[in-house]
Amino acid sequence: VRIETLCTGDELLTGLTADTNSRLFQTLVLERLGLTVRRSTVVGDVREDLIEVMHTLAARCDAVLVSGGLGPTTDDLTAECAATAAGVPLVESAEALAHLIARFARRGLELTPNNRRQALVPQGAEVVLNQEGSAPMFVLRLGACRFFFVPGVPREYRHLVELQVLPRLAALLAQRGETPVVRVLRLLKTVGLPESHLDARIRPLLAKYPGVTFGYRTHAPENHLKLLAHGATEAEARALLAQAEAECRPLLGAHLFGVDQETLPEVVNQALRTAGQTVSTVESCTGGLVGAALTTPAGASDVYPGGAITYASALKTQLAQVPPELIAQHTVVSAQVAEAMAAGIRRALHTTFGVATTGYAGPTGGDAVNPLGTVFVAVAREGRVVSERHLFIGDRERVRAFTTHAALDLLRRTQLET
Amino acid sequence: VRIETLCTGDELLTGLTADTNSRLFQTLVLERLGLTVRRSTVVGDVREDLIEVMHTLAARCDAVLVSGGLGPTTDDLTAECAATAAGVPLVESAEALAHLIARFARRGLELTPNNRRQALVPQGAEVVLNQEGSAPMFVLRLGACRFFFVPGVPREYRHLVELQVLPRLAALLAQRGETPVVRVLRLLKTVGLPESHLDARIRPLLAKYPGVTFGYRTHAPENHLKLLAHGATEAEARALLAQAEAECRPLLGAHLFGVDQETLPEVVNQALRTAGQTVSTVESCTGGLVGAALTTPAGASDVYPGGAITYASALKTQLAQVPPELIAQHTVVSAQVAEAMAAGIRRALHTTFGVATTGYAGPTGGDAVNPLGTVFVAVAREGRVVSERHLFIGDRERVRAFTTHAALDLLRRTQLET
Repeated sequence: VRIETLCTGDELLTGLTADTNSRLFQTLVLERLGLTVRRSTVVGDVREDLIEVMHTLAARCDAVLVSGGLGPTTDDLTAECAATAAGVPLVESAEALAHLIARFARRGLELTPNNRRQALVPQGAEVVLNQEGSAPMFVLRLGACRFFFVPGVPREYRHLVELQVLPRLAALLAQRGETPVVRVLRLLKTVGLPESHLDARIRPLLAKYPGVTFGYRTHAPENHLKLLAHGATEAEARALLAQAEAECRPLLGAHLFGVDQETLPEVVNQALRTAGQTVSTVESCTGGLVGAALTTPAGASDVYPGGAITYASALKTQLAQVPPELIAQHTVVSAQVAEAMAAGIRRALHTTFGVATTGYAGPTGGDAVNPLGTVFVAVAREGRVVSERHLFIGDRERVRAFTTHAALDLLRRTQLET
Repeated sequence: VRIETLCTGDELLTGLTADTNSRLFQTLVLERLGLTVRRSTVVGDVREDLIEVMHTLAARCDAVLVSGGLGPTTDDLTAECAATAAGVPLVESAEALAHLIARFARRGLELTPNNRRQALVPQGAEVVLNQEGSAPMFVLRLGACRFFFVPGVPREYRHLVELQVLPRLAALLAQRGETPVVRVLRLLKTVGLPESHLDARIRPLLAKYPGVTFGYRTHAPENHLKLLAHGATEAEARALLAQAEAECRPLLGAHLFGVDQETLPEVVNQALRTAGQTVSTVESCTGGLVGAALTTPAGASDVYPGGAITYASALKTQLAQVPPELIAQHTVVSAQVAEAMAAGIRRALHTTFGVATTGYAGPTGGDAVNPLGTVFVAVAREGRVVSERHLFIGDRERVRAFTTHAALDLLRRTQLET
């Protein structure tokens, strides 16, 4: 069954409004029926475009979900264009009109002539009353294709899709003898592996798992491997997914830090909590971003008492016990100073770990040895300090975000070793 | 000039990812060139769909902006399908390959064969190197239509659209003899004025300036007034804009904190710099976000030496000199503790101002007097401390973001008074 979405409205073509309806439908139809929307189109409130696109979609689809353009104003052209495309007149639906009158009466409002337009539907369409709004949904066949016309107001749209559209699509699948395929999804989130390396590591599994679609998503500096397993039943799909995931995990090693909705700070905090450990921070170039990341998950106070932002060199000494001579000898952007910061904040705040960042975030700074984008992150624990040097390419915002991520990831890997 | 967008990627048809690129382009092409995108299409990583849609778009458009599918992995099919649609082979671009090699070398990474695929472009295409990423942009004519193929990574996309695509479209307009209506834009950014109040204050100007479109954009907690002045020449549009802006400013008063791209941290830092003043921070519920905001603009070290993140009560005493008795008497979420934190960090770090935050960011916490979402922000200066209580509705992330903004805005208003 080939299905597409069509969303109408000038406001969707000026950057003002996003087509969130089609995204919702894509999610629901995939989760509930295992159907992938084949294409999504957005057109403005232009008669010739609406009619042309309906003809085109009718020729290649089994079903089309149309949203928007069913309101009471003059730029609401969907019903009129659907009638033109089908070669039928618009007619007033008695039940839609009764629904409108009742709805307006309940609110003590008078039905104006433009509101009454909302009861007009193409002749021969199946009318489905909308309990969440005034315009009805209607279903119309154009050739062999079923068009579901649904109001664009997100609340009404969701209501009608869930209660009216999805059951009709399930019936259509059954009628075609297609049993819906169940799909289950797992995201495996990695850090430190470029997308091409991730692809190379996973490639040997592709032929072995024809029932699993392998995809990649870049959320720099993370790369996510997406496993979408298909099956006739949910149990079958889940079993296949578990098997594929079990084969992926050793290929990803310590690069894999979490799954699905988990974030790096959540993973780090949870590992600290489980081990009864704590961490403090001292930040130069990140200016508070590491602390902000650690306190993004709720309940962070169990594992994070706080830290220092030491943008000025003097504060690295005052708050994190870094000897001024060390700064003079190595400069503030050095492994030595990063390590001294991490060890110093750990001692000062009596935590299991201390995390430090220092670097040249830009847009100026750096030297021949440590150019712009060079950062050092360090993690101290009892009796040992480790640091890493990174060179991040990009603007100040990107360098700071990547540094924050690198600091948390070094903490994660240090935890894994203990 | 008829222009459409085409965005490719399976992830855009499963509800996982929104097509934010096309929205950005819609906004930019309208603002900068006065062009409205006629239609936006999203297709998956399916060869036959990609080729079919390119043929269809070539037949009806003057220009098409394509995003996505230029990555190194097997599901990146855009260049290959563009070549097929144009009836030409894929060829390796020497300059794109040199760019790839240099980029990988800078990162110390090896160029894998799949990375090398990113240097393949349809024969005859104009190659435009991408300073923000590995895949080049390319421009290809299909019939009379110019296709701009741009990588889908949002940062790369924006960069290439602004620097490469928009100038080429402007040239196309000029070549067709279509003079774009010149539009010049000014954003007046306010804080503390609900959109309805902003509307009410500005409404009297609407009739007076028919050549200016007044719009509102909510970037909670900020509200932006958008003035878009139209003219036959840029000078004419700019003169009209300046006149309208001059009339708006007194209506907005101290709520107006900046214009256009200016951010609240930039405005605050610049005011401190001009006055030769400095600020330190001490943060509880924001966990570093205020420090991170102050250090987002470049050059922050002039005015911000640093601060403390005092998530645990004990650190409020250790790092910000808050007497434990004061915490015991008033609890950590109180005006008294916020004020003591601000005054304490100012003394400890020898700055002109001290800024403090404390509150219940959620998802749990709060009491009958100070429910969830209650926060206190405070600003200390020589001889005086002020604080404000806010009750923010929303999730943890929203409460923390609004608290950060409120702290900076209190600092801004305190500076204005001095």
